[in-house]
Amino acid sequence: MVPHLVTALTGPINELEQRLLDSMPAIERWFRLEWMEHTPPFYTSVDVRNAGFKLAPVDTDLYPTGWNNLTQPMLPLAVQAAMAAIEKICPEARNLLIVPDNNIRNTFYLSNLAQLRRIFHMAGLNVRIGSISPDVKKAATIDLPDGESITIEPVIRVKGRIGVKDFDPCTILLNNSLSSGVPGILEDLHEQYLLPPLHGSWSTRRKSNHFKIYDEVAKRFGKLVGVDSWLINPIFEKCGQVDLGTAQGVQMLTASVETLMARVKKKYKEYGIKEKPFVVVKADNSGSSSGFITVREVKDLGALLARAQGSGSAPFGGAHELILQEGVLTYERMNDAVAEPVVYMMDRYVVGGFYRIHAERAIDEDLSAPGSAYVPLAFADSMHMPQPGVRPGASAPNRFYMYGVIGRLAMLAASYELESTDPQAELYD
Amino acid sequence: MVPHLVTALTGPINELEQRLLDSMPAIERWFRLEWMEHTPPFYTSVDVRNAGFKLAPVDTDLYPTGWNNLTQPMLPLAVQAAMAAIEKICPEARNLLIVPDNNIRNTFYLSNLAQLRRIFHMAGLNVRIGSISPDVKKAATIDLPDGESITIEPVIRVKGRIGVKDFDPCTILLNNSLSSGVPGILEDLHEQYLLPPLHGSWSTRRKSNHFKIYDEVAKRFGKLVGVDSWLINPIFEKCGQVDLGTAQGVQMLTASVETLMARVKKKYKEYGIKEKPFVVVKADNSGSSSGFITVREVKDLGALLARAQGSGSAPFGGAHELILQEGVLTYERMNDAVAEPVVYMMDRYVVGGFYRIHAERAIDEDLSAPGSAYVPLAFADSMHMPQPGVRPGASAPNRFYMYGVIGRLAMLAASYELESTDPQAELYD
Repeated sequence: MVPHLVTALTGPINELEQRLLDSMPAIERWFRLEWMEHTPPFYTSVDVRNAGFKLAPVDTDLYPTGWNNLTQPMLPLAVQAAMAAIEKICPEARNLLIVPDNNIRNTFYLSNLAQLRRIFHMAGLNVRIGSISPDVKKAATIDLPDGESITIEPVIRVKGRIGVKDFDPCTILLNNSLSSGVPGILEDLHEQYLLPPLHGSWSTRRKSNHFKIYDEVAKRFGKLVGVDSWLINPIFEKCGQVDLGTAQGVQMLTASVETLMARVKKKYKEYGIKEKPFVVVKADNSGSSSGFITVREVKDLGALLARAQGSGSAPFGGAHELILQEGVLTYERMNDAVAEPVVYMMDRYVVGGFYRIHAERAIDEDLSAPGSAYVPLAFADSMHMPQPGVRPGASAPNRFYMYGVIGRLAMLAASYELESTDPQAELYD
Repeated sequence: MVPHLVTALTGPINELEQRLLDSMPAIERWFRLEWMEHTPPFYTSVDVRNAGFKLAPVDTDLYPTGWNNLTQPMLPLAVQAAMAAIEKICPEARNLLIVPDNNIRNTFYLSNLAQLRRIFHMAGLNVRIGSISPDVKKAATIDLPDGESITIEPVIRVKGRIGVKDFDPCTILLNNSLSSGVPGILEDLHEQYLLPPLHGSWSTRRKSNHFKIYDEVAKRFGKLVGVDSWLINPIFEKCGQVDLGTAQGVQMLTASVETLMARVKKKYKEYGIKEKPFVVVKADNSGSSSGFITVREVKDLGALLARAQGSGSAPFGGAHELILQEGVLTYERMNDAVAEPVVYMMDRYVVGGFYRIHAERAIDEDLSAPGSAYVPLAFADSMHMPQPGVRPGASAPNRFYMYGVIGRLAMLAASYELESTDPQAELYD
């Protein structure tokens, strides 16, 4: 499994890996104590980027799809973690309703739903799938390529509870990122657990908030294991309200990009990194990757914006709140394709992951775009099974342990984030 | 994996399997609710016997050895379960001391210790191994065939706490069944968690108590899934104090065997079972299998006892408290060898199992005897992954799910048992 990891021979990331392996008991204890005080999101996926000299999360998804990319050996771990999660939240649970994305895009997404259904069925729940899309007016069964089939039913709301025909769930699992806002049908549910909570959607979430908290988490973790937290943390800057239709707006953005680029350059110099730094501009309030802009030279920003505007769709999905983030190269490759590891977690447990690869993209571009090819790479039996004594960079399990640690740090940040944005927080204080 | 299962084609066990698969969500919910009220033993192994017409636990070990027989893909499940167990008992744990059997018998046992060390290290603990055997006077490192090595150090007790040199553990894991009684060095520890508790040893445990509780558990479970609990439960009889040196004692035992045999025969008749029933006589207070007597004809009992006495060692290890148990045939075979599944659990989770096989034993004999050959059969990725829709008897994962259910029922009985024998129980009431 290892030879394809181009980073296997690069120095700094191997030092980080060694540090994490040596600190394993301390790291696991640290997480254990964190989870005593904080509740992990129900399920999470984290996109990680390994630049060879640094390793950082670039996206934390609280409504993860792509569960079908996990391989068969990973499933028992997911089932066991699902059992633990359900037991904690609602031990008396019988029925679980999965609410899928409104846009049932393709059989990959349907396979993702089938996988989630399988995991929670094995964990001991009756599972049905109910769509809140106005287009779903009656139950429809769709056959999947592997011989399975999946039935999507319209959600009905009765007496403040949602369900599907003859099925009253106590727990509702959202696999829908609610990108166009929280629909009324999901609000004020009567004695039903909604997971993740509505404030986990992008109506409430801000990338800048997540990364601000991640910044703190990374600093504390850096102290614990004795590494500069920049090695696991992309520098970011919140740009706030910007109207790119005005010269002033563009100027403001340009100034921010310049400042961030300077900070990144300083870090590169400190570490003697010869790569060319770059900055990514994203919408602050969207999980979608549409409209990311990668800025390699500040002077090109105007042209990049013009090109994005010229393409017909507004840049950053029309968002006016922006976040600038240090670009993190991905130096992992599978065959000749650029690869980005994605770590999957259920409750507090890393249950697996895979590489997202794209043959046609460059190492500084976003890979979560239409056309990316997903390669599920089995790293289930290794996240929990690092091999002490094996030299860093030489063992896939050790590399994956490191990814699992970074994934969990981002998940921990999401946990703090959900606490800070919980509209009912004062009720518990 | 399936063709070797001779039982794969027998009817009644397939009905049971089907029933358990159909009831899976209800079963998992039932266990979930039980574990809300009761604490699972820290780790447990259960010997299961599949007679084709019934499936029953015959031994529940609270200090399980043989972890080395679990295969590599099972380990992440064990690690994840160990994380859950540690978190629940002592989240701030840093150091774990494993206390091995006094009699470090062979490299198999050492490999078992190495495996436990690995599991708990991966779960985030510093692990050392400290023996309480008076023969261990200084640390010794032993190389294992797979290239690993293991260091056994003498336990030292300072200020009411035990540890090894420069190592003060907060948690102590017994992998020593304390068959010759509880040594003073383990008593009244000062602020250290001792797992499992001392009353889990055979100084306190009685098989008759375990199976009396299992009887109740099996009845409730039988009601839940709608099966006669006899199908998952061996009939037993406690024989109490018997002095086999007297004619009166032998007479008493004979009468008990006769009564039990009659009960078993009645059940066999009810189900139209043509097999010849038999009864096993065991010491009530011992985990060791030495001195089991298998009685096929009541009239042979006297001769069997005489032969046991003539062999030099006292029958039943010299015990005077006996238990009689309905013998459960094992009809599983691997190649031509008789096979007995063993289910391994950590906390509430089934983490794996293997077949214990012995080519030279008959189907009604105990297989946990010197000379038995162990075949680790990977059923990790299947206990949690039954395959709905596959006809019963045809799928190894489905068969293993059933074993995992029976294993957990025995573990649940052990949980009740530990509650009932806890000397500090009144402190909590």
